[in-house]
Amino acid sequence: MIKVGIVGGTGYTGVELLRLLSGHPHVQLTAITSRKEDGLPVADLFPSLRGKVNLAFSAPDKADLTRCDVLFFATPHGVAMEQAPALLAAGVMVIDLAADFRLKNPATFEQWYKMPHACPELLPEAVYGLPELNREAIRSARLIANPGCYPTTMLLGFYPLLNANLIDAGTLIADAKTGVSGAGRKTEIATLFAEASDNFKAYGVSGHRHAPETVAQLQRFSSQPVSLIFTPHLVPMIRGMHATLYARLTSDVTNEQLQALFEEQYKDAPFIDVMPFGAHPETRSTRGSNMLRLALHRPGNGDTVVILVVQDNLMKGAAGQAVQCMNLMFGCPETEGLQHTALLP
Amino acid sequence: MIKVGIVGGTGYTGVELLRLLSGHPHVQLTAITSRKEDGLPVADLFPSLRGKVNLAFSAPDKADLTRCDVLFFATPHGVAMEQAPALLAAGVMVIDLAADFRLKNPATFEQWYKMPHACPELLPEAVYGLPELNREAIRSARLIANPGCYPTTMLLGFYPLLNANLIDAGTLIADAKTGVSGAGRKTEIATLFAEASDNFKAYGVSGHRHAPETVAQLQRFSSQPVSLIFTPHLVPMIRGMHATLYARLTSDVTNEQLQALFEEQYKDAPFIDVMPFGAHPETRSTRGSNMLRLALHRPGNGDTVVILVVQDNLMKGAAGQAVQCMNLMFGCPETEGLQHTALLP
Amino acid sequence: MIKVGIVGGTGYTGVELLRLLSGHPHVQLTAITSRKEDGLPVADLFPSLRGKVNLAFSAPDKADLTRCDVLFFATPHGVAMEQAPALLAAGVMVIDLAADFRLKNPATFEQWYKMPHACPELLPEAVYGLPELNREAIRSARLIANPGCYPTTMLLGFYPLLNANLIDAGTLIADAKTGVSGAGRKTEIATLFAEASDNFKAYGVSGHRHAPETVAQLQRFSSQPVSLIFTPHLVPMIRGMHATLYARLTSDVTNEQLQALFEEQYKDAPFIDVMPFGAHPETRSTRGSNMLRLALHRPGNGDTVVILVVQDNLMKGAAGQAVQCMNLMFGCPETEGLQHTALLP
Amino acid sequence: MIKVGIVGGTGYTGVELLRLLSGHPHVQLTAITSRKEDGLPVADLFPSLRGKVNLAFSAPDKADLTRCDVLFFATPHGVAMEQAPALLAAGVMVIDLAADFRLKNPATFEQWYKMPHACPELLPEAVYGLPELNREAIRSARLIANPGCYPTTMLLGFYPLLNANLIDAGTLIADAKTGVSGAGRKTEIATLFAEASDNFKAYGVSGHRHAPETVAQLQRFSSQPVSLIFTPHLVPMIRGMHATLYARLTSDVTNEQLQALFEEQYKDAPFIDVMPFGAHPETRSTRGSNMLRLALHRPGNGDTVVILVVQDNLMKGAAGQAVQCMNLMFGCPETEGLQHTALLP
Repeated sequence: MIKVGIVGGTGYTGVELLRLLSGHPHVQLTAITSRKEDGLPVADLFPSLRGKVNLAFSAPDKADLTRCDVLFFATPHGVAMEQAPALLAAGVMVIDLAADFRLKNPATFEQWYKMPHACPELLPEAVYGLPELNREAIRSARLIANPGCYPTTMLLGFYPLLNANLIDAGTLIADAKTGVSGAGRKTEIATLFAEASDNFKAYGVSGHRHAPETVAQLQRFSSQPVSLIFTPHLVPMIRGMHATLYARLTSDVTNEQLQALFEEQYKDAPFIDVMPFGAHPETRSTRGSNMLRLALHRPGNGDTVVILVVQDNLMKGAAGQAVQCMNLMFGCPETEGLQHTALLP
Repeated sequence: MIKVGIVGGTGYTGVELLRLLSGHPHVQLTAITSRKEDGLPVADLFPSLRGKVNLAFSAPDKADLTRCDVLFFATPHGVAMEQAPALLAAGVMVIDLAADFRLKNPATFEQWYKMPHACPELLPEAVYGLPELNREAIRSARLIANPGCYPTTMLLGFYPLLNANLIDAGTLIADAKTGVSGAGRKTEIATLFAEASDNFKAYGVSGHRHAPETVAQLQRFSSQPVSLIFTPHLVPMIRGMHATLYARLTSDVTNEQLQALFEEQYKDAPFIDVMPFGAHPETRSTRGSNMLRLALHRPGNGDTVVILVVQDNLMKGAAGQAVQCMNLMFGCPETEGLQHTALLP
Repeated sequence: MIKVGIVGGTGYTGVELLRLLSGHPHVQLTAITSRKEDGLPVADLFPSLRGKVNLAFSAPDKADLTRCDVLFFATPHGVAMEQAPALLAAGVMVIDLAADFRLKNPATFEQWYKMPHACPELLPEAVYGLPELNREAIRSARLIANPGCYPTTMLLGFYPLLNANLIDAGTLIADAKTGVSGAGRKTEIATLFAEASDNFKAYGVSGHRHAPETVAQLQRFSSQPVSLIFTPHLVPMIRGMHATLYARLTSDVTNEQLQALFEEQYKDAPFIDVMPFGAHPETRSTRGSNMLRLALHRPGNGDTVVILVVQDNLMKGAAGQAVQCMNLMFGCPETEGLQHTALLP
Repeated sequence: MIKVGIVGGTGYTGVELLRLLSGHPHVQLTAITSRKEDGLPVADLFPSLRGKVNLAFSAPDKADLTRCDVLFFATPHGVAMEQAPALLAAGVMVIDLAADFRLKNPATFEQWYKMPHACPELLPEAVYGLPELNREAIRSARLIANPGCYPTTMLLGFYPLLNANLIDAGTLIADAKTGVSGAGRKTEIATLFAEASDNFKAYGVSGHRHAPETVAQLQRFSSQPVSLIFTPHLVPMIRGMHATLYARLTSDVTNEQLQALFEEQYKDAPFIDVMPFGAHPETRSTRGSNMLRLALHRPGNGDTVVILVVQDNLMKGAAGQAVQCMNLMFGCPETEGLQHTALLP
């Protein structure tokens, strides 16, 4: 059994990890920390876990986290980088669901997250935890930077086209929409029900932290400089993310060739569903599951290709992806504990 | 493996059965019928099932249903009673999720469902599929009348009190609320998003079909005539049911005794969660799971006890309960294939 | 023109008062206070008011509130009672939308609101601002206690029956449901979109502050001691309140007589809509309007009468009712500035 | 008083027209037709109109529509064009809220609406009812083609830039999102609450009927051929539309100049709110009002300008715009009967 700890288990990523890990056949939940909820049974905070998780939260300083084989950091940015060096030194693997290890350049990190990086020496070693791009590296990693939710959709949508050198890397547009759980389980006016319900808006249009990690990863697959316009929006739904991606074709290519490219690229990816050309994936078809579904369109058969990508932001966009990485790191089947069928309706 | 067929698989109960049965380790999905969608792959109608269910719908007359060991009828009222006699004669067990076999009295059936009963001779044999009240009878049944969603909450909430002869059976009130999926996957104005969202209303206050089966079952446990005021309401949520039950105590009893009564009653019921006295169960704590949660209140320590009951109307209120019955009928562990943790948030 | 000020204009009651008063032909908005948002244009906080309200918030100590003819207190409990004595002395009328002046007994106030009353000498003078029960007293009042949202529905539903001595005052049950805006515009986890959406729950079942004011008002119309079981619930909708009221008839009375009683009682009330016997009012039929709609039911023609009552909790349940009182106090037509048609869909 | 009739009053556009027109000081509602609901009081179908509208629906053949000064067609495509010639000949003005008169080219109409045009001879005379582009023509028109909801946002967003020749007309992208009421009040599975709630999806990505009218109108202001990628999406909210528009600048221009251009362009438009540069308009800031709000962004100060546009799809996107046109046609102030403040929250 893999001894697993969760640092910061009171948020939505935390409770989703608990749902997944408590049902994982090879995992033994060993510690869940929360400074604020020290001593509170987890199931008192999350009644959905009554009868499923018997642990209580413990304060970080009381939990001996080195008992664990692997730790998931479901914390705000800046926490994992403080603790990772000592944990790794103690032989504990680390999967950070925040941004601490996503950017290779510590200056870029400081620019976007407004804090100096605490352990830049670990950045070269950290593996960006997107199995469809980095499967082998993840298998042998001990420090994972789990991707952001938005980047997962953008990367998996643009990657085959960019890698095949079929599109103009300088005019990428991602019009993306997220459910409200993406904002986390924290008190703020903007995500109150009476504010966010029956409403739709863009936010962060002038600049969002998920852009630099996306561009950095995309750049790996393009010789041309990558430029990305990224517009996030807030949708009145709990879970779900939809990216509408626009790219300009630079080569003559048929729709059948485009479709075949994606099908070939993802034929061994158990959590990528390439739908038929012209389909309209719905976010709910991924609710509670680790599947990411996508479909291609080409309006008027012109030179713009539109890629529609959907996922559950808490699953493939966060906790599910992290468990997928853990499976790879520990030699489990990639889909172990992640075979939930989406909840529809 | 149990060979399972679903008659009428295009509704919400159908797709939920498919979600459950496709993940059940002892089930082989054998046939799914739909007159209208004959030939359509199931996953084309329900993309959440892509990669999970490879069957196509087949017209009822084309499907050789006698290949199955058990058939779930996820059809409108009146269908199962037409086919049950021949199926039972052919050795196929029947679990009807509609109302055809819920009422022992064919006259009562006709009064509420506006059609004569097609096989009244089977009514005495049919077992009301509420395991917490009828577990042993279900084990040996070949014809199950799966309870309505509302009755499940009302019966499991009132039953311990009525059985212990602690309340006035003549003044029961059930103020119940359901999510919109309870209305089914059928076209009607009243359940359109633009009608049902951001709205709340009662319906059927003067009389609802779920009252007679509830009263009939409750009457089994009371020597006094049972009288029930039942007020259903429609909540703008997809899944979930909340019953607020009011009963007048006729005996001196402490809150601790009331709590102990319920805990004792349901101590062996794997899907009943008796929460602490004074708790407020939320429907979402059961979303996608087969758990029913309840909690007791006694406002002002007076003679009225209030029982709060929640469940997922498509799970413990329909498909989950049906699979629970199937497990009992076929000697599987009662919880097999039903151990989903609720999806929260 | 009536010079109007709003104390505490940053909540939902505040913005609703602004919507109403900015469109009222006899009102001149004169001051809006907020300690936190001092100097901020109101329309920057509430973009719906761009082009409608040009005022900025001002800190309470900077605003000379004695310039106003009347002040609305859209503040938490405890604020109005501190300021009311001086304001009244300065000739400013006061309409408090919080609870400070709703209870005549200062001990009861302290019991429920956990603070001693700051000006008990004003309690006898304060008029409970429910025009349908107290229209004449409101006309000559200078201090109004605007009713709570729940009490408005319970009082207007039970009152005709109680006043006519037709029901048992000792077994009243109110099963009530509110939209999330009733919790106010304040940061808390429980009313986040990701918590409150797609969910339903009861709260405060063991005791809610709106019960004592309701019982106190009902008691005025009954010689028998009034006893009320009041169960509030939270509905995933922004606005709207639905009360399902249960009362036991103690006299022989026909349904026609019951209906006539209500129609007669409210025939001069411009904001009460007595719907046909057996109707099912929907909350959305009052969205954004000051109408309260109700309908009577009598299940099985037994001795229980069920009254269904709906309103917009921010309108007839709060801001609309307050403006209705203001109209009466200043001799305007009762419906002035309140003739909005509900927004449907 | 203007005698007004509505043809096809049972849909969402119909009930919204009724809300607006019943409160319009210069309008006398004269006739509302519905074949299906002949004889039914309007307020029985729409309880929000109880006490506001006393008319009943009448069958089209029974209503003498020539009594009216103007008729609103809130009907499916193809109805208005059958009746317009006779009505205009009888001196009745016509405002069609469907597509019959939006396209000047009858072949294009037939291509997209799959029916030959019934009166192509009227197409040259019909005025596209977008006051901000065609105010003077509307004043003297007798036949108005009310714009589609999507085109209103796209046209008012792109128009100033295109008219000033600042952008590349060949690479326009409109990523647009609508509330579910845009699909109308008609029975279909896809817009059921249990399907559309807690979900997000694109639709019609390969081609949508609103594209050709948008391109045709935009072409009026560009010498370069206009090419538009238009991607509509469905948002789980009742009302509201958000367009995220992407255009590539072809000239050196500062952000201040862009902002000034929009402010100047719309300075006399009472229903266009140009928000500060970099703002994020929310759909709810227009809920129930006729305002369209927009804001400009320029990510990374590059050559892409992003225009965010919001409106209420039933108001500025349909019924409100139609009444705005009526005001112009009959010499009323443009804002008469349209001064509703948005309902927030």
